[in-house]
Amino acid sequence: MALDYSKLKFDDKGLLTVITQDWRSGEVLMVAFADKEAVHKTLETGRVHYFSRSRQQLWLKGESSGAYQLVKEMRIDCDRDALLIKIEQLGGGACHTGERSCFFEIALPGPSSFDILERLDEVIQERKNADSTQSYVKTLLDKGDDASLKKIGEETLEYACAVKDGLRDRIISEAADVVFHMAVSMAGNNITLTDVKDELYRRFGTGGHIEKAQRPVE
Amino acid sequence: MALDYSKLKFDDKGLLTVITQDWRSGEVLMVAFADKEAVHKTLETGRVHYFSRSRQQLWLKGESSGAYQLVKEMRIDCDRDALLIKIEQLGGGACHTGERSCFFEIALPGPSSFDILERLDEVIQERKNADSTQSYVKTLLDKGDDASLKKIGEETLEYACAVKDGLRDRIISEAADVVFHMAVSMAGNNITLTDVKDELYRRFGTGGHIEKAQRPVE
Repeated sequence: MALDYSKLKFDDKGLLTVITQDWRSGEVLMVAFADKEAVHKTLETGRVHYFSRSRQQLWLKGESSGAYQLVKEMRIDCDRDALLIKIEQLGGGACHTGERSCFFEIALPGPSSFDILERLDEVIQERKNADSTQSYVKTLLDKGDDASLKKIGEETLEYACAVKDGLRDRIISEAADVVFHMAVSMAGNNITLTDVKDELYRRFGTGGHIEKAQRPVE
Repeated sequence: MALDYSKLKFDDKGLLTVITQDWRSGEVLMVAFADKEAVHKTLETGRVHYFSRSRQQLWLKGESSGAYQLVKEMRIDCDRDALLIKIEQLGGGACHTGERSCFFEIALPGPSSFDILERLDEVIQERKNADSTQSYVKTLLDKGDDASLKKIGEETLEYACAVKDGLRDRIISEAADVVFHMAVSMAGNNITLTDVKDELYRRFGTGGHIEKAQRPVE
């Protein structure tokens, strides 16, 4: 594709900042640098190229490790001196240590996941070891599949009633109840909401790709 | 909190790279620089401070605009010369242009959202204007609430049967069907899966915060 390189601002060393981000999870994987050639090669091949400051040369990420980064989207910042590239990370992790992301060291702990469905899965996993007198989730899990299924039936009918009554807040609340109880029911079968998201990705998530980025390297 | 500043690697100008990311959506908002004082002030106040290279001074983001950035999590990269800070962005956007993110210019288009639920909402919105002979979603929407509600009932029972039979793949597939038809039903009422996620955030998403970061500035 055409990109006007003259619009990019390379610094006095001919470099700009490149941030790579997992195109699905949103996890920031790396921050590094690219010169004009690296940007060109990235666009040409659909695989992220950097400029290695230590080796002072073009660096195709994954060339030696197999951990290629397939380009899904590229954005330029308002200063035009930084690129954000959403990628699919092949091989192991993006980091040379083997970690998924270079930002694996936590200086100040926070929420483990952006995604509320993943956090919900985590909460339910934690509750598996909870005291059932303290935890609603644990009570449901202890009772087995039928207990959550009956709740899903109940919540689904409450959802239907809310829709029939046109009650916006109740529609949202009952939908959340359905999702929650479905998550509990699935946890009892060692299935997570992430598995359901993966299925939805498979069905609806393939639009908008850059097909070229997915082709194998010649 | 305690952070060993001696472990951080500031460059020859005394700076390291700071990437700020929306703690919920995962959207990368800015990339800028911080000196030691800026890192210290960020940790001390729970609001992101940078070092402005153009003004050569400490810069509390939002001081003039009100667009403060509340720290939710801080990570250090493997080279120890870059920080990733997950934040809650107050005020308007993070970018001085008023955009939510500085990376608003798309060089290579890709999926608009990380989140498959948001993408599913988008697909359903698009289908509102589709030809009903071509689109299942449009057919359902044209038939009104009852059509989607009946499908939700059907898919929920199929989900229950899959659970009773212990069929992992079918459990996942039927759960996806429930979510999909619920999304269609909600779209007919101008409600999105994002509204349901917001409700789930409200219920389950408040753990792990750094409370200090949420306190108002003195």
